[in-house]
Amino acid sequence: MYNSSNISINEQGHLVFAGQDTVELAKQYGTPAYIMDEERIRERCRIYRSAMEEHFGEGSIPLFASKALSVKRIYEIMAEEGMGIDIVSSGELYTALKAGFDLSKAYFHGNNKTDFDIKYGIENGIGHFVCDNADELRAINEIAGANRIKQHILLRITPGIDPHTLAAINTGKVDSKFGAAIETGQADELVALALSLENIALDGYHCHIGSQIFEYEPFVDAATIMLTFMRDMKVKYGFEAQIMNLGGGMGVKYVNSDPEINYASNIAGIATLCKKICRDLGLNQPKFLLEPGRSIVADSGITLYTVGGVKEIPGFKNYVSIDGGMPDNPRYALYQSRYDAVVANKASLPADYECTLAGRCCESGDLIGEGMMLCKPVRGDTVAVFVTGAYNYAMASHYNRIPKAPIVMVNKNGSYIAVKRETFEDLCKNEI
Amino acid sequence: MYNSSNISINEQGHLVFAGQDTVELAKQYGTPAYIMDEERIRERCRIYRSAMEEHFGEGSIPLFASKALSVKRIYEIMAEEGMGIDIVSSGELYTALKAGFDLSKAYFHGNNKTDFDIKYGIENGIGHFVCDNADELRAINEIAGANRIKQHILLRITPGIDPHTLAAINTGKVDSKFGAAIETGQADELVALALSLENIALDGYHCHIGSQIFEYEPFVDAATIMLTFMRDMKVKYGFEAQIMNLGGGMGVKYVNSDPEINYASNIAGIATLCKKICRDLGLNQPKFLLEPGRSIVADSGITLYTVGGVKEIPGFKNYVSIDGGMPDNPRYALYQSRYDAVVANKASLPADYECTLAGRCCESGDLIGEGMMLCKPVRGDTVAVFVTGAYNYAMASHYNRIPKAPIVMVNKNGSYIAVKRETFEDLCKNEI
Repeated sequence: MYNSSNISINEQGHLVFAGQDTVELAKQYGTPAYIMDEERIRERCRIYRSAMEEHFGEGSIPLFASKALSVKRIYEIMAEEGMGIDIVSSGELYTALKAGFDLSKAYFHGNNKTDFDIKYGIENGIGHFVCDNADELRAINEIAGANRIKQHILLRITPGIDPHTLAAINTGKVDSKFGAAIETGQADELVALALSLENIALDGYHCHIGSQIFEYEPFVDAATIMLTFMRDMKVKYGFEAQIMNLGGGMGVKYVNSDPEINYASNIAGIATLCKKICRDLGLNQPKFLLEPGRSIVADSGITLYTVGGVKEIPGFKNYVSIDGGMPDNPRYALYQSRYDAVVANKASLPADYECTLAGRCCESGDLIGEGMMLCKPVRGDTVAVFVTGAYNYAMASHYNRIPKAPIVMVNKNGSYIAVKRETFEDLCKNEI
Repeated sequence: MYNSSNISINEQGHLVFAGQDTVELAKQYGTPAYIMDEERIRERCRIYRSAMEEHFGEGSIPLFASKALSVKRIYEIMAEEGMGIDIVSSGELYTALKAGFDLSKAYFHGNNKTDFDIKYGIENGIGHFVCDNADELRAINEIAGANRIKQHILLRITPGIDPHTLAAINTGKVDSKFGAAIETGQADELVALALSLENIALDGYHCHIGSQIFEYEPFVDAATIMLTFMRDMKVKYGFEAQIMNLGGGMGVKYVNSDPEINYASNIAGIATLCKKICRDLGLNQPKFLLEPGRSIVADSGITLYTVGGVKEIPGFKNYVSIDGGMPDNPRYALYQSRYDAVVANKASLPADYECTLAGRCCESGDLIGEGMMLCKPVRGDTVAVFVTGAYNYAMASHYNRIPKAPIVMVNKNGSYIAVKRETFEDLCKNEI
């Protein structure tokens, strides 16, 4: 079973998550249901915030990457924890706004902001756009002008790092739908354009090197390239960036064989080297930003399901079907992501039954995992799948016309609904 | 550009789909938007219906596979065209019910029907359950008993066919989350169980061998195995099936290099051989059912987008970003599916610009296609992607908090909205 400090087993042999009996939660809220540990989310925010303040200095803050999970309750928690946010669409902006989040602390990302997005951001006082390309930069300049403001922006720069090949420079990464590459000279051109536009206030740079990165060295390599670029732009155009956003990507332990990350010490390591590089390059230290999403919410969430059929095919496999699947968690179908699971009402019994955990959709690829070890379940048992807090609700679909599962928050005091279960009426709401 | 009889170019050089100017449609309804050709949907239903009636005989009908596209308007069209339907969830059942569809012509599929699904189906007079396994069979028997009815069912049987290896018997296909395999003896056991349960009326069998099958021989091979099984069960238990459902899976031309299928002649080929096999095996010919989904709606749909940034990376690729992507069409991200596209307002100009058509999500894998040939677009141009009528709206997500695109139906008389565009308010509707 997945190991984490918020997971235990009680006297009835039931899985306990964040202090709450998951079998009781399944009864109370039905299945499938996302269950989220509010305190774990808050702890992670505090680790990032205090480590960044301590090691990078005041003004250097983490921005929660909304794409991992964008719902009102999350933005309320982010506001309470003093986090900034990154958003990638007007829908995320709207949700943050409805939660009362201060949008001056929001960064609007994405490779394709529509004119509507730009207007909507400007009208609602978005702090920064992270501008992706020249077409977009001109559009922001024009719309800012029409609104008689000077819009603050960062530029998205491609440093040419592949974090999964030991941080070697890999020009393949220059081939990206995101940003402007240093290597091709296009990043330089984008800076020149930004500095020439009268309704644009260029504050700095952003890069993002990938996901599920377990070492801190790739971030340092990216920072080295980005700070060198910052120095070059200072020399060439006399423009010294005040903000350096190193993006997101710190890894998460999805299964027990994944490494456990000490986020604070990773941040300390990155900060120490970034400060040294600034000194070596003769730069005033900019404010540094990081964009954790997955590492804030992933292991704060589990999903509860009810078992349907259990099927044993002699000479082949055993299949355990559950009442959810790719509509609530498409990550196996998309990336063959690994998960760990347990029969929540038999959590203290041996997990000696090897099986494929299959979703309910009419699609062969709708699986949660293969070769999983469970205590042999029967129809009606509750299964918990771990580490589903990021990119599950956020990526959920209505495939096979399955209503979306609710998000139930748990804390020491009990549980409460953050997002209600969808109804069939909701599914047809916009049909004429 | 994709070739089809409902696609042309008008005097303004605009793409015309089902008689309507797509540039005008984009202006009227906004983008992204799904556009569907009502007449093409109806034509396909008629081809299946009349070919099945002619070649298999009266009572043999096509069932529209809802999972390809489940919205009220589609069920209304299916009812008007005399189609049956297959559904895989209570959400699909609810939608069909709201459209006034006669559920006695509905078949409820899936590897994991929950107790709720079974109750909901029985209470609403579902024609047949296509029962997947023994656990489910017992649950249907129990709930039917509680409702004092005898529930009609088919059994899902795994014939062990892999249609993509020239219809050779491939025992790997026995390894499936769906159904009971003939080879392992489990199909036989399931028949015995069904016949023994007092609230179950077993009417026949169902199999489904795959998707995107361009030949008719795999269906004949499956039918041979299934009819032989039917004969064996007749000999062993004295039970002669009245219904043989051969499932779906006939291919669709997604790009011009795909074969074009003559569905009527495929059906004729299957029927001729099925009738011969019945004679050879001494069987009374059962009613045959087929379950077309993709081949009814896929090429009845296109998606319209607006171009954002156009990015040229020297020595690498050109990227054209659009205002949709994996939220409205996850099929590239899931299966690397191929699509063809055109700049709708430049449809008569040469398509000599090779590019990656990129979605707007903050995810590298959010693409519609690579190596696509377009006329070089600029920000604001309209792009049409072809053959998006199946498994696009049906699989749509809210990833990056993007509201769902509308479905606009077009016919000779003009256009109308079948499903309205979602609003930001809709996104937060269930949040507390």
